[in-house]
Amino acid sequence: MSRLIDGKAVARVIHEQTALDVASLLDDGIVPALAVVVPTTDPGTAWYVRSIARAADRLGIRCLIEQLDEPTPTTIADQLAALSADQDVHGVICQTPLPPGATLANLGGAIAAAKDVDGASPTSFGLLAAGSAEAFAPATAQAVVEILRHEQIPLVGRRVVVVGRSMVVGKPAAMLLLAENATVTVCHSRSSDLPSICREADVLVAAVGRPGLIGAEHVRPGAVVIDVGTNPTPDGGLVGDVDEAAVAPVASALTPVPGGVGPVTTALLLRHTVVAAARAAGPPA
Amino acid sequence: MSRLIDGKAVARVIHEQTALDVASLLDDGIVPALAVVVPTTDPGTAWYVRSIARAADRLGIRCLIEQLDEPTPTTIADQLAALSADQDVHGVICQTPLPPGATLANLGGAIAAAKDVDGASPTSFGLLAAGSAEAFAPATAQAVVEILRHEQIPLVGRRVVVVGRSMVVGKPAAMLLLAENATVTVCHSRSSDLPSICREADVLVAAVGRPGLIGAEHVRPGAVVIDVGTNPTPDGGLVGDVDEAAVAPVASALTPVPGGVGPVTTALLLRHTVVAAARAAGPPA
Repeated sequence: MSRLIDGKAVARVIHEQTALDVASLLDDGIVPALAVVVPTTDPGTAWYVRSIARAADRLGIRCLIEQLDEPTPTTIADQLAALSADQDVHGVICQTPLPPGATLANLGGAIAAAKDVDGASPTSFGLLAAGSAEAFAPATAQAVVEILRHEQIPLVGRRVVVVGRSMVVGKPAAMLLLAENATVTVCHSRSSDLPSICREADVLVAAVGRPGLIGAEHVRPGAVVIDVGTNPTPDGGLVGDVDEAAVAPVASALTPVPGGVGPVTTALLLRHTVVAAARAAGPPA
Repeated sequence: MSRLIDGKAVARVIHEQTALDVASLLDDGIVPALAVVVPTTDPGTAWYVRSIARAADRLGIRCLIEQLDEPTPTTIADQLAALSADQDVHGVICQTPLPPGATLANLGGAIAAAKDVDGASPTSFGLLAAGSAEAFAPATAQAVVEILRHEQIPLVGRRVVVVGRSMVVGKPAAMLLLAENATVTVCHSRSSDLPSICREADVLVAAVGRPGLIGAEHVRPGAVVIDVGTNPTPDGGLVGDVDEAAVAPVASALTPVPGGVGPVTTALLLRHTVVAAARAAGPPA
């Protein structure tokens, strides 16, 4: 029976460092601030944004929520650019789903590189792929790697299979895992024989957005399974992409949903905001 | 016994379209121009640059070779920026190897996005990964996909293994192959049991820069092998990463070195230059 990985415990470790850095910024008269542009009334998004705001509040980070009532690609880009130009804002993120005609690849470019704390711009992605420390990784993708690191799961030379090829999770996670010297396979809806490919994995990362996609037949006995899915249930809850009951007897360790990748993602987003604020303030005198 | 794929034949098909587009640009009084910054005296680089210049000349594309005698990160970036600002230059590329302290990720950013015809900047890489048609792919990575397309090798749902994780070939090739709906594995020097991973491949792409790295034990019978390696031999020739004699009896098709990926890469670089010139000229009246 697999061990459940406690995402909240990983998040707490990250929050501890963030709290120290916030205190140091406040000493210098700087209030770190994250701006969240919300171009949707999706209830799942609203729930996630509230959870970011609560966590920010607990840490002493200012959180500005900019709800757009009639979002268009232009109004969203304008809002992102305006927040990027605001000296009192250190991190800018844009929530999804986006209205028709808008893509994160295009909108992300409107966020100033130094404030792109969720790695949404093509430039941030390219710098990440190149191994540059300048850019911030998408928080969800980085959460995958942070959890593996915290759990001391070996990655060097190991097989990691990432299911999903989004710019928000699949592709950046693949880049981060390559940087950890894992052998990385990316598969997706068009992959033939998904179960057998997934069974090659020492570490399986599910990031598709389909409840129950990953069953026992996808998991090599003893593999570690990271579930990035956050699918709303009819009763207002969340389930991942992994059929937890089926996979638990096979995997050696598994992240639950909720309580796995999610809290770590939020912690990293706030961590990035504080790092951005510290960088904007310049080196300590 | 495997079929040798004729890279020169693929290049000719690309050149034919390029020649038509050059004629149309010349009609409008525009001479498409590619600038090549050469911050090295490496003989292999010099050979490659001469081959670009010859191919450009044959197509009526102006080729400016900017040899830097005492290259530093600053002088290279300044040169790339100056050429990017020159209205008569449509494509700008930077050759390697680079001097100490210089990285393509940093220097690529000095090339204007619209003129980055070898996809060297982080922004171009990010746009490529996002599937945007705005940016140019690194020519070598795109050559891999163009060859497979020309040879009508099916990719949808198939296993492709890329050996090598550089920003010039391995990573962008992985992004392009994902866009073709292949299942893509990237392995590298730290991968455990490279031969057995490589044998999973329907298509094996070798892009490491180590002569003879890929032998018969790396190739599933009937697989297609694309050799991106260009390693100089003591007698002034070139060999790839694939042991051609060993692999030929196992693979169904194989690109030779020289005469495989190389000519297609040059053809795409010139094609990109002409596309950049046409874009700069704006839509036809």
